[in-house]
Amino acid sequence: MRFYDQLINESAPGALQSVPAVTNVPAAEYPRVYADGRVTFRVHLSPATSVQLEGGQGLCAKPVPMARDADGNWSVTLAPTVMGFHYYWFNVDGTRMNDPGSETFFGYNQETSGIEIPDPQQISSDLVTSPVIPFYAPHDGPHGQLEEKWYFSKITGRWRRCFVYTPPAYNDAGNAGKRYPVLYLQHGAGENETGWGRQGAANFIMDNSILGKSSSFFAAFLGGSISKAKEMLVVMDNGYATYETPSSVKRNASEAYSSPRTEAFGAVMVQELIPMIDSSYRTLADRDHRAMAGLSMGGNQTMAVTLTHLDLFSHIGTFSGAQFMRRRPQPGMPSQPPFDPGTSYGGVFADAGAFNSKVHLLWMGSGTAELAMSESTRQNVAKLRAAGIKITEYYSPGTAHEWQTWRLCLNKFAPLLFQA
Amino acid sequence: MRFYDQLINESAPGALQSVPAVTNVPAAEYPRVYADGRVTFRVHLSPATSVQLEGGQGLCAKPVPMARDADGNWSVTLAPTVMGFHYYWFNVDGTRMNDPGSETFFGYNQETSGIEIPDPQQISSDLVTSPVIPFYAPHDGPHGQLEEKWYFSKITGRWRRCFVYTPPAYNDAGNAGKRYPVLYLQHGAGENETGWGRQGAANFIMDNSILGKSSSFFAAFLGGSISKAKEMLVVMDNGYATYETPSSVKRNASEAYSSPRTEAFGAVMVQELIPMIDSSYRTLADRDHRAMAGLSMGGNQTMAVTLTHLDLFSHIGTFSGAQFMRRRPQPGMPSQPPFDPGTSYGGVFADAGAFNSKVHLLWMGSGTAELAMSESTRQNVAKLRAAGIKITEYYSPGTAHEWQTWRLCLNKFAPLLFQA
Repeated sequence: MRFYDQLINESAPGALQSVPAVTNVPAAEYPRVYADGRVTFRVHLSPATSVQLEGGQGLCAKPVPMARDADGNWSVTLAPTVMGFHYYWFNVDGTRMNDPGSETFFGYNQETSGIEIPDPQQISSDLVTSPVIPFYAPHDGPHGQLEEKWYFSKITGRWRRCFVYTPPAYNDAGNAGKRYPVLYLQHGAGENETGWGRQGAANFIMDNSILGKSSSFFAAFLGGSISKAKEMLVVMDNGYATYETPSSVKRNASEAYSSPRTEAFGAVMVQELIPMIDSSYRTLADRDHRAMAGLSMGGNQTMAVTLTHLDLFSHIGTFSGAQFMRRRPQPGMPSQPPFDPGTSYGGVFADAGAFNSKVHLLWMGSGTAELAMSESTRQNVAKLRAAGIKITEYYSPGTAHEWQTWRLCLNKFAPLLFQA
Repeated sequence: MRFYDQLINESAPGALQSVPAVTNVPAAEYPRVYADGRVTFRVHLSPATSVQLEGGQGLCAKPVPMARDADGNWSVTLAPTVMGFHYYWFNVDGTRMNDPGSETFFGYNQETSGIEIPDPQQISSDLVTSPVIPFYAPHDGPHGQLEEKWYFSKITGRWRRCFVYTPPAYNDAGNAGKRYPVLYLQHGAGENETGWGRQGAANFIMDNSILGKSSSFFAAFLGGSISKAKEMLVVMDNGYATYETPSSVKRNASEAYSSPRTEAFGAVMVQELIPMIDSSYRTLADRDHRAMAGLSMGGNQTMAVTLTHLDLFSHIGTFSGAQFMRRRPQPGMPSQPPFDPGTSYGGVFADAGAFNSKVHLLWMGSGTAELAMSESTRQNVAKLRAAGIKITEYYSPGTAHEWQTWRLCLNKFAPLLFQA
């Protein structure tokens, strides 16, 4: 993911009126973004009879008709759009087609075009001489690394890939004996292990958070002063897994797992991923130094895995998390009752004092523009508080079930980790 | 890139007739590959009137018409296809469209569908009980890492991303004081820094080459015994660069550079990338331990950068390299005469004895199915040999201007590096 390094200022003489989106492939002039958040999409599709723009909640909640010019270019300009990353695609006479001008990102179980809408604060005329770098873009100074790591999973019978973020000074010679805590960070449904490093910009968010590079503007925007995050590793795995030999596997039949798939992912994570990470990196391999968080489906997985393994985890986060989503009936799985702090997840919340002394952070965030999700977050937080559970909540203003919410969640969540 | 871990055997009772390509997105049933190398493409496009399959040389040299069934599925099955990775796309009533069932790979200056055709040796019935793992697929045992590294380039005024392969034992505590040689490895025109790690499987090729994991079958296939490669880093950068302020830049007006773009890339590489790598990794930062190679356009860049900087490089490789491609007339660049070992590249080849004592390896490879390229490779090798230059040549049997040629080239080239 690249970010905007050109400023747009429609009122300044000679300034750029609009620029190609940073998510475009080289030389692609469209989509273009404007200083006020408008965005123009254009595609050349001479033979089509009907073309619509479709995409994520924050870009266009409904399909938007595009208009054809005499040369066969179909285009539309949207009103100012929520900043951050949005998936999109074209519906061409009923067929979903990506924009050849855009990079693709893995979402909706397939490669999908995406656009990065600049922060309006970044491009306002006041800031032309002193650009604000968003908390999710690279700053000057040292950077951590994102590493691609392959491991063979006996549980699934396949090679799997995860990404590992190591903090800026991890490879310094002076730190050769230093060990680090680990955050396991999961993507949502239809996405994969590339999501947090590309759409999510997790590496830049962690860099800026660890180094205290987020500006005072963002401190204000985020509702307070920015505290630095501890140095940590972040592991981003693929949330999908299936048992190689389903019939012969002895199931962990906990009602915590919403599906056999989540159960298999949990098994991979606990039995294969965590040991592989602890043997490959200089980790602090104990529960006090291990956290897990995830967005949407990954939030559901986070609750399932951590609450059945408090011997392994002490910090827990859900970002727009389908926290207590009741699973649909699944063959071979026990039925799942409605969420009840007294009994759900094996009764882990029943003794609030015991839970609060074990779990150093239970954190739930969502966006105010994802109405059902933020409402369910509020309800679940209230239920847990009523049961005596210590919990931190966060609502990202005006953002939907999209990556800008989850970038903000990570930026708020990471500085709270491993501070005990 | 994943590789085939299911075997196909059409003659064995109950065996799979075909499997979804490993390059498919999850749950996509098409394209499917067969044991004999046939491949079936299928896409649902009800309203289309004409759909053709188009793609790389080794898959379909010309567009292949697809047929529509009553449900609106368009499909075609190709005769046995050259193994390895091929780009492809659908031409739908004149519009180029990716296959929603495929992952995309960066090629042709845009995101493009790709398919991995299994090695026929891997899927023949004799081998069902003892699968052959190709030299470009993961083996059991330790693996190196592919790291994403961002750096700010003052020359271009932009953040740039490269990928860095570190060998399996690089992070072992016992190697904390060990330093490694570096191979700089470049992609071709229209591709980017992701090419070698995805289409090229460079990380697995290097793992297998360093650990001696290539099987005896492949030793035979590759024309001899497999020698292990030295442990080394491999740096894969983006080959495109433009000066931030072209008019004020003092040009390196060497006739070696085929374009201002290649000249700018060379400046980034020499002034920014190499110093960044040498300060971020435990490298052996001298010419004896620094190599460069590239495919196609990257081969042309390799010759331009290394032959004007023999103070920095001692090992040079071109894979289907546009080695001595004469540049088209470019504003602000001196004209480029035809290749002449006596005068080209500043006369670096004129004193063969001096060249041979400085350059420990000059290596050129190409595929026999890319006729013009392999012919020009033979001619250039002959010219250089006639001038007394020591040079190694390689021709990959039956492969075209595609990634299978370049995987084979890397597999042959890497074990020859840093052996002096």
